[in-house]
Amino acid sequence: MRIEAVDFFYLAMPEVTDEADGSQDALLVRVAAGGHTGWGECEAAPLPSIAAFVCPKSHGVCRPVGDSVLGKPLRDPADIGRMSAEVAYNSMDLLQAAHTWSGVETALWDLLGRARGEPVWKMLGYARSHPKTPYASVLFGDTPAETLARARDIRAKDFRAAKFGWGPIGRGTAAQDAEHFIAAREGLGADAILLVDTGQIFIDDVARAAERVPALEQARATWFEEPFAASALAAYGALAQRSRSVKLAGGEGAHNVDMAKHLIDYGGVGYIQIDCGRIGGIGPSKQVADYAIAKGVTFVNHTFTSHLALSASMQPYAGLEDHRICEFPALPKPLALELSQNHLRPDRNGEISAPDAPGLGIEVSPAGVRKYLQEVDIQVNGRTLFSTPKI
Amino acid sequence: MRIEAVDFFYLAMPEVTDEADGSQDALLVRVAAGGHTGWGECEAAPLPSIAAFVCPKSHGVCRPVGDSVLGKPLRDPADIGRMSAEVAYNSMDLLQAAHTWSGVETALWDLLGRARGEPVWKMLGYARSHPKTPYASVLFGDTPAETLARARDIRAKDFRAAKFGWGPIGRGTAAQDAEHFIAAREGLGADAILLVDTGQIFIDDVARAAERVPALEQARATWFEEPFAASALAAYGALAQRSRSVKLAGGEGAHNVDMAKHLIDYGGVGYIQIDCGRIGGIGPSKQVADYAIAKGVTFVNHTFTSHLALSASMQPYAGLEDHRICEFPALPKPLALELSQNHLRPDRNGEISAPDAPGLGIEVSPAGVRKYLQEVDIQVNGRTLFSTPKI
Repeated sequence: MRIEAVDFFYLAMPEVTDEADGSQDALLVRVAAGGHTGWGECEAAPLPSIAAFVCPKSHGVCRPVGDSVLGKPLRDPADIGRMSAEVAYNSMDLLQAAHTWSGVETALWDLLGRARGEPVWKMLGYARSHPKTPYASVLFGDTPAETLARARDIRAKDFRAAKFGWGPIGRGTAAQDAEHFIAAREGLGADAILLVDTGQIFIDDVARAAERVPALEQARATWFEEPFAASALAAYGALAQRSRSVKLAGGEGAHNVDMAKHLIDYGGVGYIQIDCGRIGGIGPSKQVADYAIAKGVTFVNHTFTSHLALSASMQPYAGLEDHRICEFPALPKPLALELSQNHLRPDRNGEISAPDAPGLGIEVSPAGVRKYLQEVDIQVNGRTLFSTPKI
Repeated sequence: MRIEAVDFFYLAMPEVTDEADGSQDALLVRVAAGGHTGWGECEAAPLPSIAAFVCPKSHGVCRPVGDSVLGKPLRDPADIGRMSAEVAYNSMDLLQAAHTWSGVETALWDLLGRARGEPVWKMLGYARSHPKTPYASVLFGDTPAETLARARDIRAKDFRAAKFGWGPIGRGTAAQDAEHFIAAREGLGADAILLVDTGQIFIDDVARAAERVPALEQARATWFEEPFAASALAAYGALAQRSRSVKLAGGEGAHNVDMAKHLIDYGGVGYIQIDCGRIGGIGPSKQVADYAIAKGVTFVNHTFTSHLALSASMQPYAGLEDHRICEFPALPKPLALELSQNHLRPDRNGEISAPDAPGLGIEVSPAGVRKYLQEVDIQVNGRTLFSTPKI
């Protein structure tokens, strides 16, 4: 079969706020080939990502993503890999291409799995889909008392793992931050997994980040996520040298496999967090998972949007029994839930698994998509390059 | 003064081909503040770059570039640096933002220089603008005989340095490539500077790239440019270990300062090639130049478009007397020449210099812009987010 159509759907909440909450909009991708349909999601700014698919060519290696996809053969996973290589080369000067391609690539895996009646994780070579321990992701409170209350609330909801992020951390003193870390541990209880995400707040300032390490270790945090800008490898590497029990985590900003490998090799992270919707899709994510195993690093998904994105991001490590922690969008905006008909729910052990169903195993809800759909129209010299398709 | 307006102009040749020739289109940026105007250029896909400035916010750190620029104060270079930091943070999840910001940042320096009556290089702290040795950039011929003829032609045009790139290199055997390298040297003569650019063709295959090193050294090539994908730091580092007289060159793909630093520290390049229109503008480029000096690496501009981009890309190292090689767009498409009224011409020594004139010292030609202007219209839900402005 050949790829006949690639359609983009931009969804948004009626109001989008300044929260660091990635579920406020979504960019869905629908691909069609040989009578089959597949769906994927870009974890990316929708409008520039659509433009990167349809824009006029700038030159031989600054081509729109569409040039490397439309009309191409899709017979097996190797064809998806070939397209990945073509996008990387033909669009090397088009920065946004990686984010656009991520959603398309994911949709191609979904389509291929549906055509074959196989889950994506099986096509990736895994024998089974192992359950994962979901962690709830919340923001730190404005005060340690608020952080304590939020931790107790998570505990009451039976989560065995929680990630606290952003908020006031890094904006005041290390002593103030320490109170939040201790409060989070106290609220969660001694046996829960505590994760901390500082959202790049220290940019590349190793000394300021290092001041937070003793309190993180005292609170028995499992990881210290994104202390620095995604590209600040040397800063990561220096901080890794100064941490003992707490490991660094990062990788959500990786938009190619090399970036993730470098964060492991030069940045010294203990947890590599990959978003399928940014790194180029499921194939590149699986390459990172393989590399992580070889380097003794733990793979974790990064997901802050829908259950379509969640299923996609679980596929690359579904078969790795020992890589158990899983980011679970605990409190997404309604659009992220309503865009699919089914969802990944915790089992009786409180764990979630990548579905044992064809493709990604998630059914998109046309009504949910229509409810939040943004009508986009892009023209150059009066010619329409993109107009939101029918669903 | 405050930034009142940021306007984008997308120019394109009537026909854009698959050549690796970046002068086939252009994205110009015009900024207005306090009665002054400045111009810059993004070396980037125009449509996604415009979209990254005007798109609706996705969440707190996936904001359009415009949010960090419009209405902000512009009093001195520190204000430009503050905006750079804001774009990096507020748009951390918007991949294309760096390319968009690059043109805006450049235009802000131009505006500030014009307002103060100072060249940009003086605002960067340089006492004078040292002349540079321009190299002509051409493609390898399809046969060694064609490469020889092109080299003789360049020699006849009095260039003392030339770069041969792309074409058949890396697509056949190392022995076939060697004939091209030897032909290029023969045609240029013994005293000319020979540079070789293989346009990422070996992706991350160190062994295949290393097979080309003996012939490059025999032909006395000064550098071996972009053997690998821009992000393949480990491959660069391994190849650097296997080269003696020929140094690696790279960096045009860097879209932030860290990437350039890592190419020096982990990739072992001897020449760091920076495009102001991609790395985030003139300020970040100057940071790379400072770092290159500290590390004993030579800074070189990357420019394949207009003389506005050429002047911008020369500013960050204008004051470095010993960093002499300069990429000069020897055979650009007409639009790249016609978009400005003046041009950087070689002096009687065959050298070129960043202008001793306010700002970037290049006057944009409204007639030239209008001749190649593409009318862009972007709407979301019937609301116009971008429409090509008047010039």
